Parts: sequence; structure tokens; C-alpha cells
Amino acid sequence: MSVNPRRQFLARSAALAAATALIPGEVFGQAPGRKLGVALCGLGSLSTNQIAPALLKTRNCRLAGIVTGTPSKAAEWKQKYGLSDNSIYDYKTMGRMSDNKDIDIVYVVTPNALHLEHALAAAAAGKHVFCEKPMEITVKRCQEMVDALKKAGRMLGVGYRCQFEPNHLECVRLAREKVLGDVKVIDANFGFAIGDPAQWRLKRELAGGGALMDVGIYCLQTTRMLTGEDPIWINAAEVKTDAVKFKEVDETISWQTKFPGGVVTNCVSTYAANGLTGFRAATTRGSFGLEPAYFYGGNRGKRSDGPEINFPPTDQFAVELEDFADCIINKRPTKVSGEMGLQDVKYLTAIYESIKKGRPVSLA
Amino acid sequence: MSVNPRRQFLARSAALAAATALIPGEVFGQAPGRKLGVALCGLGSLSTNQIAPALLKTRNCRLAGIVTGTPSKAAEWKQKYGLSDNSIYDYKTMGRMSDNKDIDIVYVVTPNALHLEHALAAAAAGKHVFCEKPMEITVKRCQEMVDALKKAGRMLGVGYRCQFEPNHLECVRLAREKVLGDVKVIDANFGFAIGDPAQWRLKRELAGGGALMDVGIYCLQTTRMLTGEDPIWINAAEVKTDAVKFKEVDETISWQTKFPGGVVTNCVSTYAANGLTGFRAATTRGSFGLEPAYFYGGNRGKRSDGPEINFPPTDQFAVELEDFADCIINKRPTKVSGEMGLQDVKYLTAIYESIKKGRPVSLA
Repeated sequence: MSVNPRRQFLARSAALAAATALIPGEVFGQAPGRKLGVALCGLGSLSTNQIAPALLKTRNCRLAGIVTGTPSKAAEWKQKYGLSDNSIYDYKTMGRMSDNKDIDIVYVVTPNALHLEHALAAAAAGKHVFCEKPMEITVKRCQEMVDALKKAGRMLGVGYRCQFEPNHLECVRLAREKVLGDVKVIDANFGFAIGDPAQWRLKRELAGGGALMDVGIYCLQTTRMLTGEDPIWINAAEVKTDAVKFKEVDETISWQTKFPGGVVTNCVSTYAANGLTGFRAATTRGSFGLEPAYFYGGNRGKRSDGPEINFPPTDQFAVELEDFADCIINKRPTKVSGEMGLQDVKYLTAIYESIKKGRPVSLA
Repeated sequence: MSVNPRRQFLARSAALAAATALIPGEVFGQAPGRKLGVALCGLGSLSTNQIAPALLKTRNCRLAGIVTGTPSKAAEWKQKYGLSDNSIYDYKTMGRMSDNKDIDIVYVVTPNALHLEHALAAAAAGKHVFCEKPMEITVKRCQEMVDALKKAGRMLGVGYRCQFEPNHLECVRLAREKVLGDVKVIDANFGFAIGDPAQWRLKRELAGGGALMDVGIYCLQTTRMLTGEDPIWINAAEVKTDAVKFKEVDETISWQTKFPGGVVTNCVSTYAANGLTGFRAATTRGSFGLEPAYFYGGNRGKRSDGPEINFPPTDQFAVELEDFADCIINKRPTKVSGEMGLQDVKYLTAIYESIKKGRPVSLA
């Protein structure tokens, strides 16, 4: 397929304009008077390798505290980031945060089933909460979180980084503006070969589910982002090839959804292997999609009419945090709301329900 | 992902060697003493635009006759290809082919549900049969065709062009030689926006089914080619968004299969939109796949470890016909046998059965 450089440039410019309009954090003329302080709650790989480095790149946030149950991690982070003793908490002492004016936001990065507990503690201490996805493991627990933050008068956001990724936003533009006609079918997949069999992601009590909760949620988000709608019908099936490793949670799940506008989706999530990370939207006049789609960097894609979709890399964690801080500063709603997080858990729950019942589940 | 040119060259050379070993027709030192005569039975778009031009490129075949129910087509083809009057048949006069020594092979390119009738007529006239996919619309009818050709002592092949496409063969090599580890999950999709609502493909009586029979079969073939196995479990679901146009046949179907070696597949076929034409195999150490995968030309793909999969284009119809002629000349079995065609119809039937029953179907 040929690429017309000017056409590509124009498409990119238009998309960048659209994208930046959606990412106020990226177009700040000035940093706010004070950077908002973020406490990272849970110091696993994501906090260590992605979020803490991302915080250093933001213009309106800074690392202001940590919450960890592991003293050695506390010591390590204290030294690395120059934290004071009174900005270091464990899960039992989070209540003391109410005295710490330097902390504005608690970013909850603990195992899925602990999100509610830690979000409630943060809210009780008067902090805004940014929560990793999936928001929690049941709709009821998501609702409790939404209610608690609302009652506390604090903002709640969910870590849907792809909502701030320019290549994804370009695909949303292509879908909404019908650049290649109406979207009819979306195929999306995400998976990786999970390692250590002892990790929390493989324990139902902590994870709530397996690959579906962890990575399938990205595919679900893609289908909701591209359609701008909520699914009305879900059919799903599960396949397990390693009953020992995946005794408690799902290994591979495929599901279909119908959306009210007529879009049909076909998705798969897996913990069995690397390599599936893409989506493709088939439209009345062509197609578009990304592959890889869900990496922290390097996402790119193609349009059937020529242009590549390949925006300069952004730090998705930095952008989502800048946006959340901007929402707080400017008192505007976040597009990655607790309600959105709750709805996704509702649809994930419907997928499990469809598998259990062995038949489609209607959500209309 | 970076590409190491030498590595790519070596991979291609190895794959070419493997591919050509599977395509004797492409490595003929000499043409056979006489080119085998092929009669095209059914002069629709595929015969007109793909198969007849392909025949001109083969070294061991030639267009020796036509079967058509449309006199104007007969006249057109007669002039275009310099056919004699006694090489032109209609569906009622196919029996006269027994007197025509110039015709060795009848290539059946009629609507799916007519394949058996035309194959039986060809076999009765002592001709070998090459039959478009899907072979027929029921397993029983496929079996009748297999039996008839066996009884007549003539060869039967099915038009699985991807079995001769170098990019597909390279993917088979990657899978079988475990170049990127074991294949664990395969995602495959194929669809197009079907046009004219009056065409035979939308009539159950002639087509037997919709997008699944027509294009889903390619995805099924991919999963069988990559695994080298037969599926043992199938679960499927159907979604229809245009109940008028797709009153008689399926519009969009997604299905999952399990294979005995542990591979799980997730496929989708659709008549609702263009743009879905690819597959990706997720392996223990990476992934590989093609997109586009199922076009007549321009298929290409990627490996997660760098090299592109992008062999020089071949005319898939020329190569499959050269191979079939070579099988006849050298009395060796074809790899696209009637049995393979029958098995695919068995699995397609199981997909429809799973949809009808609303539960998985076991094939073990």
C-alpha cells in the first residue's frame, strides 16, 4: 500500500490536534503553582519501572510518598527518591496521610482485590485516588469505591493509559469521523506468557480473575473507545491448557459483543503466550488498527488507505497522571472515571457469567 | 523492530527451499510431454479473473474446455481463448467430455452446492477433478464426491491456494520447526463486505452457509496448517446485524477451537465489512503472522524477532494447478486432497452445530 506523505502529515496533524485537545496535561503553557503530590500505594514492578519514572517527567505532579508493606523497599525508595520518613507509610498507617499536606493523590497499584481497601483509606485521609485497572474484582466493590470518593468529595480516576495514547486516539478519530466508513467488526487481542506461578495474578482471591481481568480489559476498552458505546450482548468461552498453573484463574478467554450501533467485536485474552497485542476495525470502506496496540511504547498501526498510524512515543503513565492532576487543579471531570472502571468490571463479570452459563448474556 | 538483512535472507532462503520442496510444479526442469488440459466448469468472476489467466502461466496445464450455462459467456470465451466448438459444454452435456481426449482435469468453480453434481459428471466422463473450496455443503456430499472419484480411478483435489502460498508455507515452517517456540494461541480473521444482495453466496440452497463457508474456511485451514492437527473441540457464536441481507446465511461468526497439542484458536469470519484478513500465532518465545494473509497477492507478515515475512508474489492459482497436474503426471497424492476438503466441511458443520446448540461441540 502506498503512502502519500502529505496526506499522512495532514492526518497526523489533525489527529495530533484532536489528541492534544483531549490531553490538557500535554499542552500546559505553564506548570501549576504547586506540583500535586502523588503517593504510590504498592511498589511492585509497575510502580518501580513505569510509574515512578513517569512521575519525574510530569509538570504538575511529583512523587510525594509511598505505601509499602516491605521495609526493604521503603529504604530503597527513600534513598532513590530522597523521601522523608514521614512520607513513607505501610498499609496500616495510611490513615496518617490526613496530616500530610504534601500528598494530594494516592495512586493505588496493589493487587486488584485490595484496591477498594486502599482507595477507602486514601479517601478517608482526604486524598484523591487514581486506581490501576481493573478497578476492583466485583461491581459491588467498584460501587463502594465510587461512593466513598464521592462522599469524601475527592476525585477518582482509573489507569486506562490507552485513553491517552495518541495512536489509540487516532483510531478513535478514524472511527468517530468515519474516515474509512462505518466500523462494522472489531477484532482485538492481548496476551502474554505469564511467568512466576506463585504471583498474585494467578490467585483468585487477589486478582479476581486471570488474563481477562488483567489484559482482556484492554480489548474491551478498545471496543468501547472505538464505538463510544456500551455493549448490549456478550458471548464468551474459556479454554484452559494448563490446569495446574491456571487452577484459580482464566488462561484464555474469547468473547464476542454486540454494540447498539451494530458493531460486532471478537476478542481474546490469554496468559498462555506472548505475541497477541493488536486490534483491527473493519469498516464499510476499509480497515484500520494497531499492532502492537497495548505496549507501554512502540504502538503503531496501519490504515487500509495507506497512511501508517505511528505517532511519536509518549509516556502513557506521565500523560495520564498529568491529566488527572489537571482535572483536580481545574475542577473538571476525568474521562477515565470510576464509573467507567465500574462499567468495565460489569462487562468482565458478564463475560465470566456467559462462560459459566454456557450461553450469551444480554445487557440491554 | 529491527531487521537483520542477512538473517532475513537466510530465513527466506531456508523457507524458499522448504516451500519449493512442497511445490514440485514450480521446480520442473522441463514441462511434461503434453500439457494437461483443464476444463473450467463455471465461468464466474473467479474463473474469469483468476483461474483462466493463471492457466496461461502454468507449464504443465492449458485451458482445454469450458462448461457454462450462459451462451454469451461461451461465445466470449471461445473468441478470447481460441476454443473449438467441441470443447464448449453446458451443464447437461458434460457427459460428452468422455470423448474429448484434450480434457484431463475439470476444475469445478460453480456454487458450493453444485460441486458434487459437476464432479460426478466429470468423474463419469473419466476426468480428474479439482474442486473449489468449500468442497461441498455437507459431509455426506463430500464423501460421495470422494467415493465417486476413487471409484472412477481419478484424482480429486481441492482449491486451497494458501497451501501453496510461500508466506503461508513460511509460517508453517516457523510453527513446525518451533523457530519462536511452541505455538500456543492462534488468532485468525477473514471477511469482506459482500455486495450484490442477489448473488448465490447469500442463498442457503446454493452456498450452504455464508461468510463461514466462504472465507472462514481460510482461517480454519490456517489453524490446521500451523498445528498440523485436527481440532478436537469447537465453540462458536453468530452475530447478525442485517437480518434482511443475511436472511439465509451467516453474516459474522466467531469460533474457538482446541487442538490435541494444546493450541487454542480464536477466529472470526464476516460478510459485514472489509479489512479483516490476517492471522497471528502467539508462541512461547514470540509471535508471527500475516496481514494481509488471504489475498490473491500482496500477503505479508511479521515475526516478533525481527524479520519480515514477505516472499515474492506467486500466482496461487497457477501454482496449485501446476501441482495438481504434477500429481497426476507423477502419480503422487495431492496435499489438498478430497479427504482434507471433507474434514474442513466436517469442522464447519460442527461450528454451525455449536451455534445451533449454544454450547461447545466435542470432536475427539
